Amino acid sequence: MTCIKGIIPPMITPLKGDDELDLEGTSRLVEHMLAGGVHALFLLGTTGEAQSLTYRLRYEFVERVCRQVAGRVPVLVGVTDTSLDESVRLAEHAAKCGAVGVVAAAPYYFAPSQQELIEYYTALADRLPLPLYLYNMPSHVKVFLEPATVKTLADHPNIVGLKDSSANMTYFQTLIYHLGDRADFALYVGPEELTGECVLMGADGGVNGGANLFPELYVAMYDAACKHDIARVRELQRRIMQISTSIYTVGKYGSSYLKGVKCALSLMGICDDYLSYPYRKFRAEERNRIRQALEALGVECVG
Amino acid sequence: MTCIKGIIPPMITPLKGDDELDLEGTSRLVEHMLAGGVHALFLLGTTGEAQSLTYRLRYEFVERVCRQVAGRVPVLVGVTDTSLDESVRLAEHAAKCGAVGVVAAAPYYFAPSQQELIEYYTALADRLPLPLYLYNMPSHVKVFLEPATVKTLADHPNIVGLKDSSANMTYFQTLIYHLGDRADFALYVGPEELTGECVLMGADGGVNGGANLFPELYVAMYDAACKHDIARVRELQRRIMQISTSIYTVGKYGSSYLKGVKCALSLMGICDDYLSYPYRKFRAEERNRIRQALEALGVECVG
Amino acid sequence: MTCIKGIIPPMITPLKGDDELDLEGTSRLVEHMLAGGVHALFLLGTTGEAQSLTYRLRYEFVERVCRQVAGRVPVLVGVTDTSLDESVRLAEHAAKCGAVGVVAAAPYYFAPSQQELIEYYTALADRLPLPLYLYNMPSHVKVFLEPATVKTLADHPNIVGLKDSSANMTYFQTLIYHLGDRADFALYVGPEELTGECVLMGADGGVNGGANLFPELYVAMYDAACKHDIARVRELQRRIMQISTSIYTVGKYGSSYLKGVKCALSLMGICDDYLSYPYRKFRAEERNRIRQALEALGVECVG
Amino acid sequence: MTCIKGIIPPMITPLKGDDELDLEGTSRLVEHMLAGGVHALFLLGTTGEAQSLTYRLRYEFVERVCRQVAGRVPVLVGVTDTSLDESVRLAEHAAKCGAVGVVAAAPYYFAPSQQELIEYYTALADRLPLPLYLYNMPSHVKVFLEPATVKTLADHPNIVGLKDSSANMTYFQTLIYHLGDRADFALYVGPEELTGECVLMGADGGVNGGANLFPELYVAMYDAACKHDIARVRELQRRIMQISTSIYTVGKYGSSYLKGVKCALSLMGICDDYLSYPYRKFRAEERNRIRQALEALGVECVG
Repeated sequence: MTCIKGIIPPMITPLKGDDELDLEGTSRLVEHMLAGGVHALFLLGTTGEAQSLTYRLRYEFVERVCRQVAGRVPVLVGVTDTSLDESVRLAEHAAKCGAVGVVAAAPYYFAPSQQELIEYYTALADRLPLPLYLYNMPSHVKVFLEPATVKTLADHPNIVGLKDSSANMTYFQTLIYHLGDRADFALYVGPEELTGECVLMGADGGVNGGANLFPELYVAMYDAACKHDIARVRELQRRIMQISTSIYTVGKYGSSYLKGVKCALSLMGICDDYLSYPYRKFRAEERNRIRQALEALGVECVG
Repeated sequence: MTCIKGIIPPMITPLKGDDELDLEGTSRLVEHMLAGGVHALFLLGTTGEAQSLTYRLRYEFVERVCRQVAGRVPVLVGVTDTSLDESVRLAEHAAKCGAVGVVAAAPYYFAPSQQELIEYYTALADRLPLPLYLYNMPSHVKVFLEPATVKTLADHPNIVGLKDSSANMTYFQTLIYHLGDRADFALYVGPEELTGECVLMGADGGVNGGANLFPELYVAMYDAACKHDIARVRELQRRIMQISTSIYTVGKYGSSYLKGVKCALSLMGICDDYLSYPYRKFRAEERNRIRQALEALGVECVG
Repeated sequence: MTCIKGIIPPMITPLKGDDELDLEGTSRLVEHMLAGGVHALFLLGTTGEAQSLTYRLRYEFVERVCRQVAGRVPVLVGVTDTSLDESVRLAEHAAKCGAVGVVAAAPYYFAPSQQELIEYYTALADRLPLPLYLYNMPSHVKVFLEPATVKTLADHPNIVGLKDSSANMTYFQTLIYHLGDRADFALYVGPEELTGECVLMGADGGVNGGANLFPELYVAMYDAACKHDIARVRELQRRIMQISTSIYTVGKYGSSYLKGVKCALSLMGICDDYLSYPYRKFRAEERNRIRQALEALGVECVG
Repeated sequence: MTCIKGIIPPMITPLKGDDELDLEGTSRLVEHMLAGGVHALFLLGTTGEAQSLTYRLRYEFVERVCRQVAGRVPVLVGVTDTSLDESVRLAEHAAKCGAVGVVAAAPYYFAPSQQELIEYYTALADRLPLPLYLYNMPSHVKVFLEPATVKTLADHPNIVGLKDSSANMTYFQTLIYHLGDRADFALYVGPEELTGECVLMGADGGVNGGANLFPELYVAMYDAACKHDIARVRELQRRIMQISTSIYTVGKYGSSYLKGVKCALSLMGICDDYLSYPYRKFRAEERNRIRQALEALGVECVG
């Protein structure tokens, strides 16, 4: 398998209520992103609220999205779990549905040591029916996948890449230094504010939440960075930062980003903004601030 | 419902392998603890490795233990989950099996705000078929249940107590000050090193992992503290600290405590020491150190 | 030297302005605490805003307080610094002024390892003209003095005790277990909410900020705990918790405790409430809340 | 004043012993860096061990380096302190010696709130005789200077820039977005692993510790990034990463970076590797690893 390169949106999970998918929203959102030129989709990540959803709904969502995508782009599925066996079970479902890879952050309740992470990921990769992407997400799982750990794991034949959401660029540069030359191991950056510079410096792409809203913008950033067109990168960066500082920062929640993305998608007429517990969607005042932010970005709101 | 008072061991989950219970060990461990005089059992907590187990096994374990206990003591079941609906589903199963209450730490992936915690726990308690005990576990879930949050939630008719595993006694004293006088709200302390002083100061009991090993010791401590027998409390405290500093500190793992308890139970001939991923049981050298620690405590090892 | 036992208030530093002591307030506060029966004084600790003061003022303050105390109780001086040589220099001044011991938290800029802490404290104790008390203050210095480190350091002939402000009672119980029986090594607890239970369990006293305000209350708690009078301990505990939850929690500052103590002292007519940068004293609204809290405690406000 | 642009090494402080400068080493190191083309010098930063030094030595060091530089490049002086008045006093000395600006991280003992930081930095900038650069250093001072705080402070006429050592590029991109266009406000990045991409994206330069060792390398990186020469940036980046992963990571210390830089300078014959407490210089085995790392970089060792 050659690496996926480019923009891989971590798809939000459109919901109508507890344990109920927004089916039409899901369909519209998939087409919206594919029309924007994204290179793959990533389901059931942090942005997808995976941990808040029932297993039943997670399985349904994977099946429906894979069926709709129908091979037009590769689909990756998040199988992050605290139970290794549940991760494997979901991966087997994803394989049956046609996904091409799975993504797993560290088990996130009892914080493991680096040695325990190596044993865990090795056991997981041994049992998975699909290639595994590591997912470094220290703010949520409390531990870094340290560079030495990643180097060791990168030698496993079924571990094929890493997504880093730490925003710590010294860390990511260390990974690029050690692994950036390997054609069989992909390095993706999570925070969209960093996609430009990361691709310039050798990363393979971005798993950027904003690509749910504006897929063509992040694809354009990826293309400009691949071409080393710095003027264009910096021009696009200003727009990405406008989104980041106006859509993702309403309210004082750790979850402001997630609430903002779903609210904006609702205002754009793409899908419902229902959020699973423990999160709640924005109320009128905060929704108005998102509306104003979208209008300042030149987006017509219909919701 | 009047509060449960006393020692409530957070029962370890005896395993033979991935997704396989140690059935005989489970049976022996239940009888060992009941023979030691414990006042209730708590299944599927942190010590029970709940998050690492498949749902299937969790359901089976609750059913088997409830059947064996057969009402001799009350059984509480941990339903901590990142998905509210999965918590409710497990609680419904626990209710059917005969458990009398459930325990839930905060959702532990995306860290919620205090306001989100209030909404989350309120929604959860509204839907649960059994009374709910809050579980403060900041080292694992990244947030404290702040005293003001607990005070608010304590007014919910279906929220009946709190277990604190923070080891932060300023926090726990604040809860005792605000809620210690309420007969319908229980306060339990997690770390066994603190059971003596907490009960002296007004707590209702201890959810102490060491009571898997030496149930009578923790029951004796509870009794001594209830009687304000300081000399006896300090004598028992020395033994509890000997256990804590010799059994729970082998190796440099965050999980040393869990590995140590399971290893000691295995050496005592009670149950297998298999650990679910990402944890692994102690190897020979560490096992020998646990053996020496048990012998220093006057325990005969059979394993 | 036998250990100091009892209540050792960490004295606030009364200020009139930047780099200007409130001399009359200093004098009144010393007499207020001595009249309340405290067993020693601790100058230039966290509560004393030591790090915010110029060296000039720190030296002046030590000299003035020592002169006024004139041997009526022992005086300890905080020499916590990031520069070992500056700590030694201040200790030499303290010795000349008549202080009987010094107190030092870990250097607090670049976080040291445990091995570095052992080398640092050994070098410091070797050079100090007075006995040294260790000060565990992880929230401010970012590292714990781990029990193994403390055990090693406790063998140094010039290291004679430890004050713990972590509020982590598992930690403190571990120290009591290892060192509580040594007559030549004192263990004091910082948070006043814990003095009762700590003395009951074997600690030598409390370094409690509230003893600036109500010295006799904390002395009474110490006495009751020494006598194992649990009923009295719990009665006094309620009053200590009332102070803690009403005086130290106004505003959402990390420094609410310090602002509250100084504001209350000002309202009680004892000294000025000027705070050194980066802190500022409470304004009218917050001051009114402190006034109400004091009145609820039965204190007549004159300020 | 127009902004300084380029590479501003945070100069290490060459020491011979406690409270004793290595005068010849200081002189050699200054000339080594100036010969390498650096654009300014920054004294008494984190890399300069400022907090570990006596005030006496800090004052002497500023005076000697300023005298030797003699205006060939601008000199900035770190005045980070927990006491505002001590910061002002050192800044007055720096101004007399000919420094052109000062740098201050937040007071680092009691963690201030954002509002307290605004009041603190405003008071500080009001009193300083030289322009002030903010210094974001959350790992050491426990708080971020949040973007909104920086935006507010950037309007103060005497606050002229910020150095960010967080390595959090989402944070730094947010500052570039808000302040990157202001000609009168400079943005520098601390970690040298990020200088290339930061300058590409609009930063004004790097305050890079490695420029003590290899000043011309970091100057070359700055130049290549200014010219948007991506091929050259990535080539230089490999060498910078080789330094970072071999010189700064020996041992498991938080201070490995500092020990490594001083050890390498000693091996290169530039200055002594004495470290002030609580740090100690590398012993033979670690020194050998640094020697091998230098040789792998093609550096001839003389020490």
